[in-house]
Amino acid sequence: MLTDKAARRARFEGAWKVIKQELLDYITGEGMPKDAIEWYERNLDYNVPGGKLNRGMSVVDTAEIIKGTPLTDDEYLKAVVLGWGIELLQAFFLISDMMDLSITRRGQPRWYRVPKVGQIAINDSFMLEAAIYYLLKKHFRGESYYVDALELFLETTFQTEMGQLIDLITAPEDEVDLSKFSLKKLSLIVNYKTAYYSFYPPVTLAMDISHVPQSYPSGTQTIEPYALAKSILIPFGVYFQIQDDFLDFSGTPEQVGKIGTDILDNKCSWCVNTALAVCTPEQRKVLDENYGRKNSECERRVKVVMPPS
Amino acid sequence: MLTDKAARRARFEGAWKVIKQELLDYITGEGMPKDAIEWYERNLDYNVPGGKLNRGMSVVDTAEIIKGTPLTDDEYLKAVVLGWGIELLQAFFLISDMMDLSITRRGQPRWYRVPKVGQIAINDSFMLEAAIYYLLKKHFRGESYYVDALELFLETTFQTEMGQLIDLITAPEDEVDLSKFSLKKLSLIVNYKTAYYSFYPPVTLAMDISHVPQSYPSGTQTIEPYALAKSILIPFGVYFQIQDDFLDFSGTPEQVGKIGTDILDNKCSWCVNTALAVCTPEQRKVLDENYGRKNSECERRVKVVMPPS
Repeated sequence: MLTDKAARRARFEGAWKVIKQELLDYITGEGMPKDAIEWYERNLDYNVPGGKLNRGMSVVDTAEIIKGTPLTDDEYLKAVVLGWGIELLQAFFLISDMMDLSITRRGQPRWYRVPKVGQIAINDSFMLEAAIYYLLKKHFRGESYYVDALELFLETTFQTEMGQLIDLITAPEDEVDLSKFSLKKLSLIVNYKTAYYSFYPPVTLAMDISHVPQSYPSGTQTIEPYALAKSILIPFGVYFQIQDDFLDFSGTPEQVGKIGTDILDNKCSWCVNTALAVCTPEQRKVLDENYGRKNSECERRVKVVMPPS
Repeated sequence: MLTDKAARRARFEGAWKVIKQELLDYITGEGMPKDAIEWYERNLDYNVPGGKLNRGMSVVDTAEIIKGTPLTDDEYLKAVVLGWGIELLQAFFLISDMMDLSITRRGQPRWYRVPKVGQIAINDSFMLEAAIYYLLKKHFRGESYYVDALELFLETTFQTEMGQLIDLITAPEDEVDLSKFSLKKLSLIVNYKTAYYSFYPPVTLAMDISHVPQSYPSGTQTIEPYALAKSILIPFGVYFQIQDDFLDFSGTPEQVGKIGTDILDNKCSWCVNTALAVCTPEQRKVLDENYGRKNSECERRVKVVMPPS
């Protein structure tokens, strides 16, 4: 395993060029005109690489850890295709997540705000999702785990969309109603919208390509490695999101690189749900009247009830 | 086969209740809150049934024709699930096709125009697509053609999205440039955006569940029924779209039930492309200056060059 994180990232990013070219070759072969091919390339390059790539790279990392020795080029290619598949899934969710009305992502304008893109961004997001299944078929059609991998992507997609729906109707930016919030609701949103797709799929896909069996005996016990991985990785995803909520709430700009806006944006965050669970009626009144109000004076009043440190 | 079209439609529509309930049972079992379940039900009922249902019903019709005798209840269920799968795919494409800015579809406000829906419609369209793969797994997981059916839906989705992309960048409503149009471009758009998903998938899915073989000998020849079906049904889809273009252009409101708007909307229709292929430089100038202008006087000038009858 390459121990230098920057070198591992560079290799992972280098593989993006190969994978992108496979997609462009496919649509070129289908007879797409030049302007459509160029548009798709711009969509892919603008929206897929450039993030932290933790989800995608963890497919490669996990495959290396399971094997214990360096991956062959063929093994690396399999892992990296699945890794970029996860990144395509993430990009599909995020490009279309226009409803949060934020103007930038990763420090650049959101795709739908780029000149001439606009509502075409919706179809563009679909074409990122479709790329996943083209790549799966091209690289894994003959493998025993092909259907499992297809179903994992498809089911995780549905779960994430369910989480997105609950979040959207529970915490719309333009209509605050804290009675819709609860730690139980938060748990559903966090599990479905973030946890299911963030940690379990990369690891389980790496287990697939490493031919980890569904179960095996160990002494008098039967080990079920996929169920075991799930039991660890879903709570890990929940922890990740709660930490993200907490950093938005109490991290300094120096620590987190941005100023938190969850209070202004009516976010159904762990912090407000915890406050709602323990607050007095007077404190609740302050939260009801000031949370999610896109107004810095209201935000200040919320922070009196929920002091960030 | 039920010969009464209304009775066949009523049976097909009756099955929607069963299929919708399977989807609601699934998300209920996942622990979704009541308001999210109700939202999904409204999304499904608003967007999926209510159209002509030609695509969906043709799965059932084809299965009945192949068998030659009435389908058993189990055979009918398989056909109808795939039929509603095609209708879900169609609804997924249409709900998200917000960029054409039309306000109504099938005589009711478009989903994103319904109060409180707005941009949530994007995620709602994703959840119609995801429903297809839940239903395929539930009903066909053990069948020999399961992977073929999955891939057919996934590949057809990608193709339709490619067609949508070419159409969107060739004929944006707000920027007329007839030099982007051509009969060749039209052919690509019509094949990818309409023909691939409209006729071939319903028939080939019916062939799958009827266990039609990939090929069989006939005298000295080898018959490949899927390739044969494709060679007929893709051109059939092209013909369907060109007929649709022609009716928009020259049909009377009494004939087609609506007033055509393709000229006003800068549509890359068969009619304008045919005109562009044969017009004089003077006529071309009139088209360049007046096509797609959202202005009835401009539309009138176009119709002088391209008389509707």
